[in-house]
Amino acid sequence: MKPRIDASQLPRGFGFSAAACGLKKIGLDLGLIVSETPAAAACVFTTNLVKAAPVLISQAHLRRSSEKMRAIIVNSGNANCATGAPGLAASRSTAARVARTFHCKPEQILVCSTGVIGLPLRVERILHAVPDLAASRSMRPESFAQFTRAIMTTDTRPKFAAASCRIGGKRVRLLGCAKGAGMIHPRMATMLAFVVTDAAASPNVLRRALRDAVGGTFNAITVDGDTSTNDTLALLANGASGARAIRSDNAEYRKFLGALESVCRSLALQIVADGEGAHRVVEVEVRGAPSERAADEVARTIANSPLVKTALAGGDPNWGRILAAAGRSGVRFNPDRVEVRMAGILMCRNGRAHFFDERAAHRKLLATHVPIVVNLRAGSGAARIWTCDFTGDYVRINASYRS
Amino acid sequence: MKPRIDASQLPRGFGFSAAACGLKKIGLDLGLIVSETPAAAACVFTTNLVKAAPVLISQAHLRRSSEKMRAIIVNSGNANCATGAPGLAASRSTAARVARTFHCKPEQILVCSTGVIGLPLRVERILHAVPDLAASRSMRPESFAQFTRAIMTTDTRPKFAAASCRIGGKRVRLLGCAKGAGMIHPRMATMLAFVVTDAAASPNVLRRALRDAVGGTFNAITVDGDTSTNDTLALLANGASGARAIRSDNAEYRKFLGALESVCRSLALQIVADGEGAHRVVEVEVRGAPSERAADEVARTIANSPLVKTALAGGDPNWGRILAAAGRSGVRFNPDRVEVRMAGILMCRNGRAHFFDERAAHRKLLATHVPIVVNLRAGSGAARIWTCDFTGDYVRINASYRS
Repeated sequence: MKPRIDASQLPRGFGFSAAACGLKKIGLDLGLIVSETPAAAACVFTTNLVKAAPVLISQAHLRRSSEKMRAIIVNSGNANCATGAPGLAASRSTAARVARTFHCKPEQILVCSTGVIGLPLRVERILHAVPDLAASRSMRPESFAQFTRAIMTTDTRPKFAAASCRIGGKRVRLLGCAKGAGMIHPRMATMLAFVVTDAAASPNVLRRALRDAVGGTFNAITVDGDTSTNDTLALLANGASGARAIRSDNAEYRKFLGALESVCRSLALQIVADGEGAHRVVEVEVRGAPSERAADEVARTIANSPLVKTALAGGDPNWGRILAAAGRSGVRFNPDRVEVRMAGILMCRNGRAHFFDERAAHRKLLATHVPIVVNLRAGSGAARIWTCDFTGDYVRINASYRS
Repeated sequence: MKPRIDASQLPRGFGFSAAACGLKKIGLDLGLIVSETPAAAACVFTTNLVKAAPVLISQAHLRRSSEKMRAIIVNSGNANCATGAPGLAASRSTAARVARTFHCKPEQILVCSTGVIGLPLRVERILHAVPDLAASRSMRPESFAQFTRAIMTTDTRPKFAAASCRIGGKRVRLLGCAKGAGMIHPRMATMLAFVVTDAAASPNVLRRALRDAVGGTFNAITVDGDTSTNDTLALLANGASGARAIRSDNAEYRKFLGALESVCRSLALQIVADGEGAHRVVEVEVRGAPSERAADEVARTIANSPLVKTALAGGDPNWGRILAAAGRSGVRFNPDRVEVRMAGILMCRNGRAHFFDERAAHRKLLATHVPIVVNLRAGSGAARIWTCDFTGDYVRINASYRS
């Protein structure tokens, strides 16, 4: 069982709430995170050229508010993407309605949406729900749990993680949650994820910490190679712990970064484990590459190969597909030196089959976590990417998502 | 029903045969194409860095024989890839055994393999079968039909096409066949395909014709984005028609190229239509791109998107995923100008939903051929890529290919 969040883990000064406003046919579809005082913020947004209205509005708000935010409002059930001027107006009026409730400026509100692309957002349902949503916020774990459910789409379970560290003798807490499932691809924050902390830090320090934390976490996962139009990762720090402000480049920064990384890594792995239709998490590690970039390229090519991922769905020790994927990655290496291990079993040595027990390998490959290690023996570059297997359930989920 | 090949369509001077030598558990797994006189040859091989032994041997043979070949021997059931020095020796001894039968040099033989990667090839079974295989060759359509079956792996049906044209008053015939199914990806000849003709042409002219023909045919299809280690496209011309030699850059070259393109296009589309688990062929056309290269990049990104392909499996008019795939292609355009049509129905105009009848669209999307047209309205670049939908059957086929 996944550990639950208890009250002592909640960062001070943040409230959460959720509501069912009718965007989904059933269930919670609107969530709110509020910082009782303005919180420093840093965000990473999708690199997709096609950006949803809430992404464009949140980017503008972040700039105009000097990165001092009060709340994040999130709806599921509709991405509010490819919705033109009415879509932008919908995100703007959502922010304005939330701002009015908290007597702050609209640009102090971040807006996020997730769901189907291209359908007009029934924003009046959101606007109607905002006053109650704001009034019902609380600092209890149950409210946070409801928030984590309100942002889900095809996720089968909520995703959250907590950490803490001491800054100048005072404890600061970090709490994060995410939604993922499909359209998960690295090279950006690839889903909706929110991390709040009662640490004190400037937007500059937060931005740097976020950049340092995403490389080996959110940017190292892939489900299907598709990049969402709505991806947003937001980090808010309100200083309510009373701890002194974190500055970059000292031991306290590194402690904070460690805690932030642990939250991001946990959320990223939860996203992969709950990839649409996934039965197992696959960790692709490439060693001995000519460079780190080359290792990363080989690891991503393997992690996104439909043939590798379907073989993993069946627990098939098909190391030849791993070798073939490495070979088409564009990276130069000598195929006759390559080693491939799946689930700890050496299957390919010097580019050739190495004897192994097929039955035993098949059994090990049916585990919930399968490591793949590819050593190119062509240098010292290394990289690690997490993905999931590619199952018939992925197809089933995505063949009729809209209906 | 697919048209059958009749005797009048067979290029003169080529014999075909097939055998079951025991590499597959059941069925034909060895095929032979023989030109009774040395034939000029041109080939395109996989660009995968990991190349199977038969690819390496065939490349060497093509160089050493001055591109004058006598035969092509093909086995299915084993790719003879990642098999090291014994694998190379196996391909060499296969060529030598065929050469001995025809009293020619081993370098006049092309060797091809397709099947599982990394298993040692039981070459003695091939060597044992060669004499009968050679002796049983014939110029009858039935022998060609058997050859087309012997090269199949997960293909559900044989793939072949014929064409002819007049060169200097004499009829020349072209006949091609291919195997495809999985690991189909553009930017090279992405499968095994063989085209033989009784036209006369130098290897230089054939090479040029092949290069001119593959761009809009074999290099414009994709099934799963995975590139095989064994891909080979071979073109043999033995001049047995008695027609005068084709030279490049005149009207006769263009006639021959037209016939070659029609054979290649037919084979390429048959491969896509028989993509592993495919229910329909999807034609992705991108117009109005900043350049042809940009159009190609956008079309390939859409054609390889698992989310787009799974939506197509379900006949879901999910144009938002098409827009999102275009947005992550790396090509710059204004999302607010884009038009998307699926199955002839305008669904997205100026980057926004355009009203359409969902039920009627769903019905049209269940056809066996579905065109998608994306107009970026950002220039005059255009490109066309063919792919197939991504179904639960693809996963089923690939989750346990080796067992």
